[in-house]
Amino acid sequence: MPITSTHNDKLKEVRRLARRSARGEGGRFVAEGEDLVAAAEAAGWPPVYVLGAADSGLQGEEVEPELLARVSGLGSGTRQLGVYEQRWSAPRGPLCVALWGVGDPGNVGTTLRSALAFGATCIALGPGCADPFGPKAVRASMGAIFSVPVARVSSVDELPGERLALAARAGEPLAGPAHGELSVLVGAERAGLPADVVAACERVAHIAIAGDSLNAAMAATVALYELTREPGPRMARS
Amino acid sequence: MPITSTHNDKLKEVRRLARRSARGEGGRFVAEGEDLVAAAEAAGWPPVYVLGAADSGLQGEEVEPELLARVSGLGSGTRQLGVYEQRWSAPRGPLCVALWGVGDPGNVGTTLRSALAFGATCIALGPGCADPFGPKAVRASMGAIFSVPVARVSSVDELPGERLALAARAGEPLAGPAHGELSVLVGAERAGLPADVVAACERVAHIAIAGDSLNAAMAATVALYELTREPGPRMARS
Repeated sequence: MPITSTHNDKLKEVRRLARRSARGEGGRFVAEGEDLVAAAEAAGWPPVYVLGAADSGLQGEEVEPELLARVSGLGSGTRQLGVYEQRWSAPRGPLCVALWGVGDPGNVGTTLRSALAFGATCIALGPGCADPFGPKAVRASMGAIFSVPVARVSSVDELPGERLALAARAGEPLAGPAHGELSVLVGAERAGLPADVVAACERVAHIAIAGDSLNAAMAATVALYELTREPGPRMARS
Repeated sequence: MPITSTHNDKLKEVRRLARRSARGEGGRFVAEGEDLVAAAEAAGWPPVYVLGAADSGLQGEEVEPELLARVSGLGSGTRQLGVYEQRWSAPRGPLCVALWGVGDPGNVGTTLRSALAFGATCIALGPGCADPFGPKAVRASMGAIFSVPVARVSSVDELPGERLALAARAGEPLAGPAHGELSVLVGAERAGLPADVVAACERVAHIAIAGDSLNAAMAATVALYELTREPGPRMARS
């Protein structure tokens, strides 16, 4: 028998988990859509439960399709979703990306995705960052939330290795590859990194751009690309 | 007297311009929010008209605030918007980014933003791309739509200079800086570039990544970063 009542406990929990406070209390989160549920499974991250639209043929406890679509935090016609326990890690090297004051969940999720693409070992989230387990961040991560360890930090001291602050135009030009353990710190789009955070870092670097600024996710993506480049002559990069 | 009727011709046009077909017919588009209106002004792109919420103190013909918020294509509390004539350019070098089948407006807008940041001369939009003058693309461009020429193309032959196809794992590793006139082609996230498009390009290159794929905007951002890097030893990049 599919779930047909909005008062069902699981549907109520899914709705509740759209709120950051509820995610904080319960320590759970929702991944919406069959791609994300598949990404969790591929990463070996077991669901607490999976719900699937009754007519979809998708795995999971059956829910009346319109009811399932209505609990979606993303406003699209979700046909499958999973509820998962959050996992928080300690910051770990050798290549950690630390975001500071990045309140946009899309930027947090996209940075997770870049971290996976370029093989970063961890995303550390400083004060003022969006919740990586929120619906928009999870969606933007395209499943990377299930593969890249996320950590919470409140001070630069908690970050592994040498600390490199990415600034708009200050410091050295960013140049890879990184040697040894490194944490690269990226601030919010307009505000950048707080001065005391920059001051606590061993190095400051910038991405050479001709025009306007980059958002946090673009800056993190370019930084990871540069820091993970192969050593040796540039033309021989592979 | 502020505009107080939903039947006002300007409000009706703004609502109509949320549809791609209406933008195609009228050749106009909407930029929502004071940051975008300011970006247009800074770029010397005159509005057909600007509307401002009556209580905002912002420039523009006054509109009853709730009415203005309701015509928003982005669902946020817009207090100012401008209507502009579209400008389409011919593809131009020396550094053109060509998107093919990139249907996500956020990716088109973010690529515009990267083009501005890294000094690309044009964005060429091939078949299947989102409209760069749509509300989400304009918003994601953060005003770059007013600074970076956009062109429509239907074939690789229309692109300036040497054509470099960005592929997931094929061809040479991408290595900058670019010499001479170049068009770099980027496909959609999963599909990539069509085989006949790749075959029509003089060169094929990939971005070395460890894990999953990048979306079109991330790939374009990294490609522009790499192609606009300073020549000379990598460590001396500035």
